[in-house]
Amino acid sequence: MKNDKILDILEQLVSGKLDPQQAEKSIESYFFSDLGFANVDHHRSKRQGFPEVIFGQSKTTEQIVKIAENILEHESTVLATRLSAEAMNAMSRRFPDGEKDEVARSFVIGIPELDLKKIHGTVLVVSAGTSDLPVAEEAVVTLRAMGNPVEKLHDVGVAGIHRLLARMDILKSASCIVVVAGMEGALPSVVGGLVDVPVIACPTSVGYGASLNGFAALLGMLNSCASGVTVVNIDNGFGAGYAASIINRIGLNK
Amino acid sequence: MKNDKILDILEQLVSGKLDPQQAEKSIESYFFSDLGFANVDHHRSKRQGFPEVIFGQSKTTEQIVKIAENILEHESTVLATRLSAEAMNAMSRRFPDGEKDEVARSFVIGIPELDLKKIHGTVLVVSAGTSDLPVAEEAVVTLRAMGNPVEKLHDVGVAGIHRLLARMDILKSASCIVVVAGMEGALPSVVGGLVDVPVIACPTSVGYGASLNGFAALLGMLNSCASGVTVVNIDNGFGAGYAASIINRIGLNK
Amino acid sequence: MKNDKILDILEQLVSGKLDPQQAEKSIESYFFSDLGFANVDHHRSKRQGFPEVIFGQSKTTEQIVKIAENILEHESTVLATRLSAEAMNAMSRRFPDGEKDEVARSFVIGIPELDLKKIHGTVLVVSAGTSDLPVAEEAVVTLRAMGNPVEKLHDVGVAGIHRLLARMDILKSASCIVVVAGMEGALPSVVGGLVDVPVIACPTSVGYGASLNGFAALLGMLNSCASGVTVVNIDNGFGAGYAASIINRIGLNK
Amino acid sequence: MKNDKILDILEQLVSGKLDPQQAEKSIESYFFSDLGFANVDHHRSKRQGFPEVIFGQSKTTEQIVKIAENILEHESTVLATRLSAEAMNAMSRRFPDGEKDEVARSFVIGIPELDLKKIHGTVLVVSAGTSDLPVAEEAVVTLRAMGNPVEKLHDVGVAGIHRLLARMDILKSASCIVVVAGMEGALPSVVGGLVDVPVIACPTSVGYGASLNGFAALLGMLNSCASGVTVVNIDNGFGAGYAASIINRIGLNK
Amino acid sequence: MKNDKILDILEQLVSGKLDPQQAEKSIESYFFSDLGFANVDHHRSKRQGFPEVIFGQSKTTEQIVKIAENILEHESTVLATRLSAEAMNAMSRRFPDGEKDEVARSFVIGIPELDLKKIHGTVLVVSAGTSDLPVAEEAVVTLRAMGNPVEKLHDVGVAGIHRLLARMDILKSASCIVVVAGMEGALPSVVGGLVDVPVIACPTSVGYGASLNGFAALLGMLNSCASGVTVVNIDNGFGAGYAASIINRIGLNK
Amino acid sequence: MKNDKILDILEQLVSGKLDPQQAEKSIESYFFSDLGFANVDHHRSKRQGFPEVIFGQSKTTEQIVKIAENILEHESTVLATRLSAEAMNAMSRRFPDGEKDEVARSFVIGIPELDLKKIHGTVLVVSAGTSDLPVAEEAVVTLRAMGNPVEKLHDVGVAGIHRLLARMDILKSASCIVVVAGMEGALPSVVGGLVDVPVIACPTSVGYGASLNGFAALLGMLNSCASGVTVVNIDNGFGAGYAASIINRIGLNK
Amino acid sequence: MKNDKILDILEQLVSGKLDPQQAEKSIESYFFSDLGFANVDHHRSKRQGFPEVIFGQSKTTEQIVKIAENILEHESTVLATRLSAEAMNAMSRRFPDGEKDEVARSFVIGIPELDLKKIHGTVLVVSAGTSDLPVAEEAVVTLRAMGNPVEKLHDVGVAGIHRLLARMDILKSASCIVVVAGMEGALPSVVGGLVDVPVIACPTSVGYGASLNGFAALLGMLNSCASGVTVVNIDNGFGAGYAASIINRIGLNK
Amino acid sequence: MKNDKILDILEQLVSGKLDPQQAEKSIESYFFSDLGFANVDHHRSKRQGFPEVIFGQSKTTEQIVKIAENILEHESTVLATRLSAEAMNAMSRRFPDGEKDEVARSFVIGIPELDLKKIHGTVLVVSAGTSDLPVAEEAVVTLRAMGNPVEKLHDVGVAGIHRLLARMDILKSASCIVVVAGMEGALPSVVGGLVDVPVIACPTSVGYGASLNGFAALLGMLNSCASGVTVVNIDNGFGAGYAASIINRIGLNK
Repeated sequence: MKNDKILDILEQLVSGKLDPQQAEKSIESYFFSDLGFANVDHHRSKRQGFPEVIFGQSKTTEQIVKIAENILEHESTVLATRLSAEAMNAMSRRFPDGEKDEVARSFVIGIPELDLKKIHGTVLVVSAGTSDLPVAEEAVVTLRAMGNPVEKLHDVGVAGIHRLLARMDILKSASCIVVVAGMEGALPSVVGGLVDVPVIACPTSVGYGASLNGFAALLGMLNSCASGVTVVNIDNGFGAGYAASIINRIGLNK
Repeated sequence: MKNDKILDILEQLVSGKLDPQQAEKSIESYFFSDLGFANVDHHRSKRQGFPEVIFGQSKTTEQIVKIAENILEHESTVLATRLSAEAMNAMSRRFPDGEKDEVARSFVIGIPELDLKKIHGTVLVVSAGTSDLPVAEEAVVTLRAMGNPVEKLHDVGVAGIHRLLARMDILKSASCIVVVAGMEGALPSVVGGLVDVPVIACPTSVGYGASLNGFAALLGMLNSCASGVTVVNIDNGFGAGYAASIINRIGLNK
Repeated sequence: MKNDKILDILEQLVSGKLDPQQAEKSIESYFFSDLGFANVDHHRSKRQGFPEVIFGQSKTTEQIVKIAENILEHESTVLATRLSAEAMNAMSRRFPDGEKDEVARSFVIGIPELDLKKIHGTVLVVSAGTSDLPVAEEAVVTLRAMGNPVEKLHDVGVAGIHRLLARMDILKSASCIVVVAGMEGALPSVVGGLVDVPVIACPTSVGYGASLNGFAALLGMLNSCASGVTVVNIDNGFGAGYAASIINRIGLNK
Repeated sequence: MKNDKILDILEQLVSGKLDPQQAEKSIESYFFSDLGFANVDHHRSKRQGFPEVIFGQSKTTEQIVKIAENILEHESTVLATRLSAEAMNAMSRRFPDGEKDEVARSFVIGIPELDLKKIHGTVLVVSAGTSDLPVAEEAVVTLRAMGNPVEKLHDVGVAGIHRLLARMDILKSASCIVVVAGMEGALPSVVGGLVDVPVIACPTSVGYGASLNGFAALLGMLNSCASGVTVVNIDNGFGAGYAASIINRIGLNK
Repeated sequence: MKNDKILDILEQLVSGKLDPQQAEKSIESYFFSDLGFANVDHHRSKRQGFPEVIFGQSKTTEQIVKIAENILEHESTVLATRLSAEAMNAMSRRFPDGEKDEVARSFVIGIPELDLKKIHGTVLVVSAGTSDLPVAEEAVVTLRAMGNPVEKLHDVGVAGIHRLLARMDILKSASCIVVVAGMEGALPSVVGGLVDVPVIACPTSVGYGASLNGFAALLGMLNSCASGVTVVNIDNGFGAGYAASIINRIGLNK
Repeated sequence: MKNDKILDILEQLVSGKLDPQQAEKSIESYFFSDLGFANVDHHRSKRQGFPEVIFGQSKTTEQIVKIAENILEHESTVLATRLSAEAMNAMSRRFPDGEKDEVARSFVIGIPELDLKKIHGTVLVVSAGTSDLPVAEEAVVTLRAMGNPVEKLHDVGVAGIHRLLARMDILKSASCIVVVAGMEGALPSVVGGLVDVPVIACPTSVGYGASLNGFAALLGMLNSCASGVTVVNIDNGFGAGYAASIINRIGLNK
Repeated sequence: MKNDKILDILEQLVSGKLDPQQAEKSIESYFFSDLGFANVDHHRSKRQGFPEVIFGQSKTTEQIVKIAENILEHESTVLATRLSAEAMNAMSRRFPDGEKDEVARSFVIGIPELDLKKIHGTVLVVSAGTSDLPVAEEAVVTLRAMGNPVEKLHDVGVAGIHRLLARMDILKSASCIVVVAGMEGALPSVVGGLVDVPVIACPTSVGYGASLNGFAALLGMLNSCASGVTVVNIDNGFGAGYAASIINRIGLNK
Repeated sequence: MKNDKILDILEQLVSGKLDPQQAEKSIESYFFSDLGFANVDHHRSKRQGFPEVIFGQSKTTEQIVKIAENILEHESTVLATRLSAEAMNAMSRRFPDGEKDEVARSFVIGIPELDLKKIHGTVLVVSAGTSDLPVAEEAVVTLRAMGNPVEKLHDVGVAGIHRLLARMDILKSASCIVVVAGMEGALPSVVGGLVDVPVIACPTSVGYGASLNGFAALLGMLNSCASGVTVVNIDNGFGAGYAASIINRIGLNK
């Protein structure tokens, strides 16, 4: 019924298949459906191809497990991010088939199989230093949970630019690139100047003093002299991975 | 020669077709080519599908016209942004076939014909208020100059949310959406919650007092509660359009 | 004696009921009373319809209990906010009839019965996400302690705007609305555009990175494109509830 | 037709008074009406009791006059703020019955007659210094255009607190108070401590150096130690007046 | 020798009382002495009437006790501020005659007797709320340690302005006033408008959200509309007391 | 009558010299007088020893001249600061005996003769660079208008510390010192470490880039490692001079 | 006499060559000389190898010419920076042998001949974009005026990293490098990672929106992940050139 | 092979010493070598004279020890900074010949012997207060680990400027000076005005309130009125020492 038009409903009413009360209800729910409204669990994955993600930071372990159970009743994949060690262990015990990632502080159940008809290619996650790894890996986990093949290029910050240049082949073969960096946040500009695919820049709070908890990197990325770079919030590896995933199925998701 | 391998050059050397000095030079220039390096004018459009754009803000009218002439020797399209009225008129006189856009403060020569094999669909540019128009139209011009069909939805800010909801059909049919807003910058969150395509948020410096010249809108967009929203610099309509254009040909540009 | 005029005192002096020294003292104390000055406990509730509220954050458990005892000697209602678990338990033991609210971190003794002649209607408290609940519930407790009927609408953030639109009836029936939101703080603009009653926006420190501990939400709300929205300090649920309560009895409190 | 229910439309359809196409259209427009959506000019004044206000700052004189003409076709009152001297003169010539206010940089046509059944009382506008007058008078004009009786108390800043205390009678008799102040922005706290009615604080950009263009005053007001004070954006006299006006008819506007 | 002139030394050299090497050394040390330079312990109290103060915050208990012992070899008064409970107890044990102040987190040994020829009068310390007490009491202890009679006026914030006005006599009788306040920091402006003596404003970090850890109060005080108000750093009760003490002996200290 | 007590009034009432209405009025006006309240022009100079100062920045030339005329009806001295060249010339024409200071952008009429019984000594105004002169001279003019002898020491910034040290005699002989500096604002710390008199630091907006329009200097001064330094707003030469003047007559002004 | 010791003076005194008054004066002036104190014009060039530089920004044309004349009486080189077109022309007319640089907004008289015994090598000035040229050229002029050979590498920003890499030879042959960049300020990190000589980073105010007038570039440079990078103020090309010049003669200037 | 030219490789190829595949590989690795690229451990010390430094802050004790072991296989010196007490002890146990510095929170193995042909002289590290010691000593350790003789001058802040002036001899004899200061950060300006050698300013986070965690000191240093001062990040003692070390061997390191 989801693809019906209001007109269809009205015709059913005229033909007597629906009475006015039924029709009124159908129209209302239809209207919301057309807008993507209605019960969150059911429609979010229909609307956006992926169910709600559990942001673990301000939730108790019990809440996290319970929400995961609830989502699994309707969906085959669950992603939980920003988990404490305790929450990660509780998830492991409850969902032994799930995958725990301690660096990314994440837990995934039911990573979908790759369906190359639904994506444009491999997403590359590049990071500047080893301290940026938790954020970069959060992007990696998110990308995998959303059905993308992922390549990684870690510790290739601009102070040793050759480390990046030596891997031009990987840079050139990606369909979309997530670049994670703290401190001065210069890496997205360099990467953006070398490739012709979308670059999503994710600043991290790595640094000290005038890094202002990631604000210096954020400002650097927003002012990137390379065209085509867009930016997400500080330490938001999930957001970067999510955006890259949506970009990676543009034109294929309908 | 651009697709040769170093090995080919070396084999030509061994076979005597090149002498060592010639081979050295070829290798060097090859190396740069493989990285996308070398003469900017020639390679930028090869590397990224679009030649350099003239950012008019800190340039004299003479410089702008001269650079345009120079690019046109190698390219069929030229885009100049942030032009003064004077510079726009000078461009019009010099390039009578070009297209002047006074709202967007831009000038384009040689807008390419649409080639639907090279793009995924129509890019939608949404703006919150009439004061955001110059930035929104800069995005529109950029998108058109880069070969994208564009739809516009102006003056649909969140204080009258019905204006946006009434156009769900347009929102749903876009392959990628640029959202331009000043003041509290809330529109990208609302749009991002309604669609499943990439949303690029562009804050504007529209507002006063605590809008901090667009910083309030920028922060709002970075903190968007809708996943999949990425952000560009304040008033950077060009950057938003450029990023959307690159996203709109992902997987098709090789 | 509180409603006497200086003239009355002077006439008592002339008639010999007061001697000059007595009259001087009466006049002085009268003057302060007329300004609303004098002993805080007695006059604050007379002046503003509600006794002092205990802000528990920087007080010891002993101090909180003692102040509550002191206020109760003169008043029938006591509200204490920002209580630690320890302080809340101590209050429960000392005042077994009081009401403990763990989410709102508050304790109320003697919630007044509703007197519909003294208020204009129901106050609605809307919140964007589950993490905003402690602040929203602090507003709720404050409103109830000050004699207002309260409705709640939680977790209706702008990224899923349909959740809000589906409850237009509740929005439309409120006499005043408190909107609590963190991250980009966009919800008050949307609500403010839908209703014609006062909207009080309360930013929360929910978010991370560029949320700047609630500053992004605060700026967003101050720049709201919806007219009629006013703002209180970050996480100040009490202040939002207090302001709404004063608004809700405008014209009825004399 | 605006108060019809969807059911009515459906019944008209069943009875043949409407055909399916007509019914579809009616339902759609009805739906929006129920949400307060639809043609802005017609519905805004129905929804919020006041038509759109013309914010003159970023508009040409021609645009301003034209919008005013358009609004007057449907409404009896028009308010335009932030007008240049040129725009104010053009409005005067075009609408000779309108009222020009050079201090408030505003123009009003058709100030409504006072209807004391629709408001709770007089709104008081208090300002700290003579430099705050343009913002304070913008609030005054807005209040008058929206049908409120207004009192003013100018130049009563906290450095000479006696000037304020000497007018306690005026403070006490207001139903709602707008307080406008620059520099340290302390006046709303003092006023808020003296009265029991809603206080709306409006910071101004008056000051220099560490006043940060009004940010110091804004922060001061947000941190007010007086309960019940809410805040609007810097220099936003219109917003303060609008909010006070909405508060002043709470419970009376339906 | 401290008041000798270089000329005296030279004359001693010419007369043979000093040889050139001795004279060179005398001149060098003389030069520094004339500038107030040399061994810190000896000259600081000579130069400024008070020995070095021990700032305990970043020092170990052992260091604090040791420095106190060292100063006491040359001076009769020692003041230590920002002490931990542990450090305060260690000082108490080592210097049983010293005075421990737990609110002010300070310890003083040898408070000097009042010598009314060396000071102009009583210094008044005013504070806005009970949470400002630690900073206010640090100012009090500093003033007492430097030989000033002190009066206190606590909890007289501007939200209940009558509490301050009721004590005009104390305000009027002070020779210098220290005003301590957090949140919006408005109290110094009000006090400054009521008196004609120097007012030193000390912001505190009391507050939350947009108080920005005392920055709102600091900005408010710097923008005070009352002339004659000067400001010290956030929470710097010691600095406020020290400055007031120096002001209180102007013209008497030579 | 200004020194009467309420008791006197009451006794006059009892004795029939005043009727109750007259007595009521006298008491009211008396009460304000005791607080220093009442007509600004008359009482400000009585309360603070100096009449209102005309801050010329946001006033028209006509307003400035008119206010000056008004003040001169009651006072012998008038100070106007932040005057435009036009306003200064108008003042010169209207008050030919007044003194125009183009560097300080100020105008004074009736500088009082020095009365050494009312002040403690000479106030020294020190400035760091030649660009700080306008602010420093505003302090000088203010000091002179308020009856203080003034010495100046210009262009002695810390980058050439010898220039300051060479003038230790002047530093040592001042009763109070105003230090004006832009850029890093280090001069007050150095001066504060050399003297034992009050030091008032006045930051200026001199500098560029990271000077943040004087904020860097302001922060530097607030963090001064020299005790006894207090700070006024950026570019507030008037405020610094006013505060120094009040300090310079402490204990002598009653 | 400048290299005499105090002892020498004293011995002259003993031997009767100086009388005590003469000796006192000599000692004082000597003392200052030893500290680098005394008459600025004479000693500054002795102390630091370069006379005072004229910062033209806040000076009149007359002042600039006059100071230049004054310096030339004692020195062979004069450098004036931040000159208006008018000041530059006036300098050209007055000093026809001087060298005008319109891009650098500077004027130099008497550029010294290169003396390779006094410097370590060539200083390289690298800039990111053409808009950074005025700042970069100010550094170049300063370096040349202070006797350094200079190489330039303009428009090699990180978005086209190959342009920089192609010039490794120039980078490798410099003794010290000044890197000038606006926007995200990433270039110094990349350069710093490629060389082993001192890198001085100079941010420019080039950019818009979130570039915060050069603050984003400044923060980026301070957070550079390349060791050995130090930073000067925004747009401070003179300061960068001056620092590089001092570094370039380390160990050779005595 | 490292100093070969590409031509050499090609000639070896022509002469049959290398086959094309071998030559291709050699050229690639050669190319990177020429740029300073390739295996980090081997080339970093060749390129910059010092191997990678271990930044201990975000690493586990195990990681730190392991990296140290790895570096020692190729290098004779290892420096680790920002170590916890635990990490420092683990390093001591594993490398008993290493040197532990608890104030500097650092560990060095194999401090090189001084080779005066490779450096220009002694580097002086000056600090303002005792709280700045950890940062100052980090600079000292870094300088020593990189082969520089170091002098120290601690606790010579500008509030007692004589302490600095008394040590002019040490200031004058340094080849390069690192100045470490918190609070107002004025010391580098004073030092920079006294010497003619490079001054590297390092702000510290020492201070409170408006020191903004070192930002006040940082801004002060960037705005230094003394030419030739360059700045590093807050608390970055390592960076200051590293930069000074590179400066100290300019012209000698090839």
